[in-house]
Amino acid sequence: MGRYDIAIIGTGPAGLEAAITATIRNKSVLLLGSAQLSEKINKAHLVKNYLGLPETGGEKLKRAFLDHINELGIQITDARVSNVYSMGDYFALQTGDINNMLEARTVILATGVSQTSTLDGEERLLGRGVSYCATCDAPLYKGKRVAVIGYSPAQEEEADFLAEVASSVIYFPVYKGDINVKPQVKVIREKPVSIRQDLRGFAVVTATGEYQADGTFVLRESIAPDKLVPGLELDGNHVKVDLNMRTNIPGLYAAGDVTGTPYQYIKAAGQGNVASLSAVSYLAEQDRK
Amino acid sequence: MGRYDIAIIGTGPAGLEAAITATIRNKSVLLLGSAQLSEKINKAHLVKNYLGLPETGGEKLKRAFLDHINELGIQITDARVSNVYSMGDYFALQTGDINNMLEARTVILATGVSQTSTLDGEERLLGRGVSYCATCDAPLYKGKRVAVIGYSPAQEEEADFLAEVASSVIYFPVYKGDINVKPQVKVIREKPVSIRQDLRGFAVVTATGEYQADGTFVLRESIAPDKLVPGLELDGNHVKVDLNMRTNIPGLYAAGDVTGTPYQYIKAAGQGNVASLSAVSYLAEQDRK
Repeated sequence: MGRYDIAIIGTGPAGLEAAITATIRNKSVLLLGSAQLSEKINKAHLVKNYLGLPETGGEKLKRAFLDHINELGIQITDARVSNVYSMGDYFALQTGDINNMLEARTVILATGVSQTSTLDGEERLLGRGVSYCATCDAPLYKGKRVAVIGYSPAQEEEADFLAEVASSVIYFPVYKGDINVKPQVKVIREKPVSIRQDLRGFAVVTATGEYQADGTFVLRESIAPDKLVPGLELDGNHVKVDLNMRTNIPGLYAAGDVTGTPYQYIKAAGQGNVASLSAVSYLAEQDRK
Repeated sequence: MGRYDIAIIGTGPAGLEAAITATIRNKSVLLLGSAQLSEKINKAHLVKNYLGLPETGGEKLKRAFLDHINELGIQITDARVSNVYSMGDYFALQTGDINNMLEARTVILATGVSQTSTLDGEERLLGRGVSYCATCDAPLYKGKRVAVIGYSPAQEEEADFLAEVASSVIYFPVYKGDINVKPQVKVIREKPVSIRQDLRGFAVVTATGEYQADGTFVLRESIAPDKLVPGLELDGNHVKVDLNMRTNIPGLYAAGDVTGTPYQYIKAAGQGNVASLSAVSYLAEQDRK
């Protein structure tokens, strides 16, 4: 694959606009996220204030956005990024496919905001029994008991993968609809409220029960940005950016809801444009060195 | 007219998006600028990176934007604002119509950037022989000799108006095309390079001549933002804003090219959205007091 000029994480308006602008500026672009675009676009009822597209519902908006990227030949790589590491003059991006560590000279975070709050105990136990990445940490649980808390159907695959390694997997779906997992994955239809680690052992606690495990994978659509990128500076729950969408990490930019309120389509697109042009400037600067 | 909730100066993408968002939030909006929209929209050849409107030329973009504001019943007040004064809990806006000082509780500056630089001597003599506003300062030149440097055809009207008051008017058009002014206005087809005030008197200097006058009106499409709003803090040539598009003056916001590079349509629209929602929050805060 080589090293991309710009990796963009997220396929909401910020990520799409960033990809369009970077493509027009002749940069090689790796656009990572759901090929169905962000949840936020799909769930939009009626957007009245996206200048130039009056009274647009989610379906129409999605169509207009997809038409635009298709026209420019931009591909979406349908992958979930679990970690972004700054390597000095480039970034390494870890996705589900462990044999394929992706590389890019700059990164734009356009991951949106997660509406779900963290579970009690989750942050405290992160890295000590709690993991956000099945691909990364599965080897630690070879022959052990694993719990998986999945916030979207995409996580079922991760539970299946863990079942290949762990001695047992229990799966807590935190969403509605049918569950399609391997027979050896035990599905528990209870909402987890906390993760516990004390003298009684390690367990996932729901309103009605407790489930022992050696480790718990908490898998959401979007990972908190500072978990995704070690060392990233936040302002409250959002990525701290300046007017050029620069973060505290050189070569790393953020755009859209992940940078804070207001959560608006047109604002996200505008910031995606700025982030993209800032990355283009940064690349030119590096090339002059 | 009463006092508007939000006055928006400029009809480029930033101003239009701000007006749309404010209208949807049920605020009374005064949108001031050219009813033909900004020069920048009209002159656009092909915009490829306005997400959702691929490969759009100026004419199509203008149509899409006008359709959007028309659909929401937003009117453009075709007026040129010469001064904005902060009056504590509201702003007074001076336009060409001297009998009609407009009032608004908040103001969004979306005036774009002027591509022309100031003339030598212009800033030094501003208020001492140089004026940016015919309506405001015409009375000072009753029976005197006036020079007018006009950067667009819209300024011909101002020259005509000054001819009603001054003893003589010479007009320097800094643009191409036919000039339609009253017979008593003398048109000089030479490009002014400086304005001089010394022992030899006050004069407009061109490459080939010198033209004595008692006062000079320099009339551009857009006025430098700190000339428009006394006390406004700049960052270089641009209005200094934070991520919420706040300026140093409470209740006054800025969006689009006036805040700095990149000069991009989608970025301007995004900032217009943010400025508008910041003004909405400010109004709510004031109402709670």
